[in-house]
Amino acid sequence: MVLVNENFLNLQNSYLFSEIARKTREFIALHPEVTVIKLGIGDATRPLPLSVIQAFHHGVDELADQKTFHGYGPEQGYAFLRDLIVENEYRARGIDIDPDEIFISDGSKCDTGNILDIFGKNIVAISDPSYPVYVDTNVMAGNAGIATDNGQYADIVYLPCNQSNNFCPAIPNFHVDLIYLCSPNNPTGAILNKVEMKNWVDYALREKAIILFDAAYERFIVEDDIPHSIFEIPGALKVAIEFRSFSKTAGFTGTRCAFTVVPKSLNAYDSKQNVIPIHPLWNRRHCTKFNGVSYLVQKAAAAIYTDIGKNEVENIIKYYQKNAEIIRKGLKQAGLEFFGGINSPYIWVKAPQGQSSWELFDLFLEKLNIVGTPGSGFGPNGEGFFRLTAFGSIENTQEAMKRIQNYNFGLEK
Amino acid sequence: MVLVNENFLNLQNSYLFSEIARKTREFIALHPEVTVIKLGIGDATRPLPLSVIQAFHHGVDELADQKTFHGYGPEQGYAFLRDLIVENEYRARGIDIDPDEIFISDGSKCDTGNILDIFGKNIVAISDPSYPVYVDTNVMAGNAGIATDNGQYADIVYLPCNQSNNFCPAIPNFHVDLIYLCSPNNPTGAILNKVEMKNWVDYALREKAIILFDAAYERFIVEDDIPHSIFEIPGALKVAIEFRSFSKTAGFTGTRCAFTVVPKSLNAYDSKQNVIPIHPLWNRRHCTKFNGVSYLVQKAAAAIYTDIGKNEVENIIKYYQKNAEIIRKGLKQAGLEFFGGINSPYIWVKAPQGQSSWELFDLFLEKLNIVGTPGSGFGPNGEGFFRLTAFGSIENTQEAMKRIQNYNFGLEK
Repeated sequence: MVLVNENFLNLQNSYLFSEIARKTREFIALHPEVTVIKLGIGDATRPLPLSVIQAFHHGVDELADQKTFHGYGPEQGYAFLRDLIVENEYRARGIDIDPDEIFISDGSKCDTGNILDIFGKNIVAISDPSYPVYVDTNVMAGNAGIATDNGQYADIVYLPCNQSNNFCPAIPNFHVDLIYLCSPNNPTGAILNKVEMKNWVDYALREKAIILFDAAYERFIVEDDIPHSIFEIPGALKVAIEFRSFSKTAGFTGTRCAFTVVPKSLNAYDSKQNVIPIHPLWNRRHCTKFNGVSYLVQKAAAAIYTDIGKNEVENIIKYYQKNAEIIRKGLKQAGLEFFGGINSPYIWVKAPQGQSSWELFDLFLEKLNIVGTPGSGFGPNGEGFFRLTAFGSIENTQEAMKRIQNYNFGLEK
Repeated sequence: MVLVNENFLNLQNSYLFSEIARKTREFIALHPEVTVIKLGIGDATRPLPLSVIQAFHHGVDELADQKTFHGYGPEQGYAFLRDLIVENEYRARGIDIDPDEIFISDGSKCDTGNILDIFGKNIVAISDPSYPVYVDTNVMAGNAGIATDNGQYADIVYLPCNQSNNFCPAIPNFHVDLIYLCSPNNPTGAILNKVEMKNWVDYALREKAIILFDAAYERFIVEDDIPHSIFEIPGALKVAIEFRSFSKTAGFTGTRCAFTVVPKSLNAYDSKQNVIPIHPLWNRRHCTKFNGVSYLVQKAAAAIYTDIGKNEVENIIKYYQKNAEIIRKGLKQAGLEFFGGINSPYIWVKAPQGQSSWELFDLFLEKLNIVGTPGSGFGPNGEGFFRLTAFGSIENTQEAMKRIQNYNFGLEK
């Protein structure tokens, strides 16, 4: 008889965002008269930049003509896009990355999940709270062990991120193999500065570990001296894989394009301690289980790097940053304690009266008609927090803050 | 130290099509004066249907406007497309499939690879020759064991498909768990008729096995009484997953859209022999490691099911079918023995003088300047064969046949 991957049976609950969607759907069905404002999922709401739209139309016309039709492209992505990424995202910051080290994909969610294909059984360290995909894919891959009572897994090393450490994971004083870091952080909005990143890189070099660095929110960094790429840190090309995305940069959440940087100087090991370069493994995985991103989407993504495109993207980011500012001001006026929202589209709100995250979710949904994301959905250390995002419209964000300010949380203002 | 998935180290050679591309590139670099005709990879060359182009343009305009902008969609695909697929591909054939059982993806290559995520260690049976992704992904997943001298893997059950069984895999007289079937077949062009499919479904029911049915070339079936879906066979909803694609149907090879049907009535087992439904497992995998297909691409795919779209798709298929006819006539006139090309875009050519597949590849590339695919790249039983495809332009296909007919293969004509 055919056997399932029993690791799947260890998965707890359903995927966080599906659960939120279900609760929201049910509430709206019961209260059709109410205007629910969604500040939950980190989903773009601004239309695509005009330069991207034009590139799309142009690409569509190419596919309408036999002479310019495009069938299968290179699995790793078209050179025109890989070159632009290298030039604009890396060489412009003094980082020496080769276009061959860039793998275009249909999403960082996919990449952060699929990357485990090439790794064996390792000790995995994950920030807590964190993007649920890191934990869930490790459960599927058999790295997590059994679920414990608090919703964690026995074999995962959790790196607590809480108020006492300013939401920055501390370097463990023991060995781990694979480390997930995300900066600017989803969900807390915290960032890792140069010193903190250097400490992690040094740890990985020392421990022969690999850092899986999720920089999907890099474009939101405004403060100086915050690394935009882990490869700004000396030695990182030997110990890190970086995940980047056009989703939050240019509103590609529904359009689907991302990229992953796998340096050729990155090595891991086999069980006999032989050095195994990672790049050929990921290249083989990518070419065998993936067939490239839609030509049109790659064309459109390339438009982001034109002068006009860059300017348009900057304006989109500014729009969301303005929302983050509105949220920060609004929460402050309401007397709520919160973190993040400066170099990040995420604002991490502390439950005002010690409520649980889901209690706060229900309160926000039912009393304020605002959808946020329960912090506990990102891990036990997220308990008692609630994530708001700056991805709404300015009008909705302002209206949400009005509702929050008018609500009596039982606090002195 | 961080360990790699050592199964990757068992992989033989590089991916077939990358190897062909490399050889072709090198030949062209050395002989820039020569016009090389590519009848190798099964890649669409006809432009996208006008209805698809229009849907694309319309979708792009939606993304340019905040009121009609689309961010994240349902991971499983938009209801508008899932409903159309159910209606047109299944209910129209009397098959009762629920839209929830359709998972829209960015490619059958991805799905046939990723499906292994949800299965445990199983005895896997794969037709030989077959699409290389089946074997390679099983190697990565650790189902294949070590490589043997003939390029096969010790733990895979190969189902030989050769002249003596008319390229149809025989039912094994022992137990296997997972069975890959592809009809119309890539690479041989053979089809499974109703009786043959029924025998497989009955075997799977009896053995509590699951059939992974790749029907990417379904649209090429012209003869009556050949099932277009495995779900036409009674009982198949309990034992099969079906992979379908818009790549070969409507020229989406570079556009990327496919779907996989996972029936809710399909079960597997855990190691204690408990029944485990497969649908929730795949749903969880799909929602955790995938973020949906581009909205635009789904909009475009839906246009295929309009009356105009259907007609346009039919014309594209007819175009390729005409090519298949040209190839069949050409090969016949050249005195070459071949199979397939009737219900399939693939023609499986036998080496005229007992050459190896790669010898034939080199001969075709160097003497005829035609790129085909070496049969041995699909498995040892493909040795001595060569795959030509009907996906070229009519002009190139005619020119290729002229070259073949003018070449002295050392045969009596």
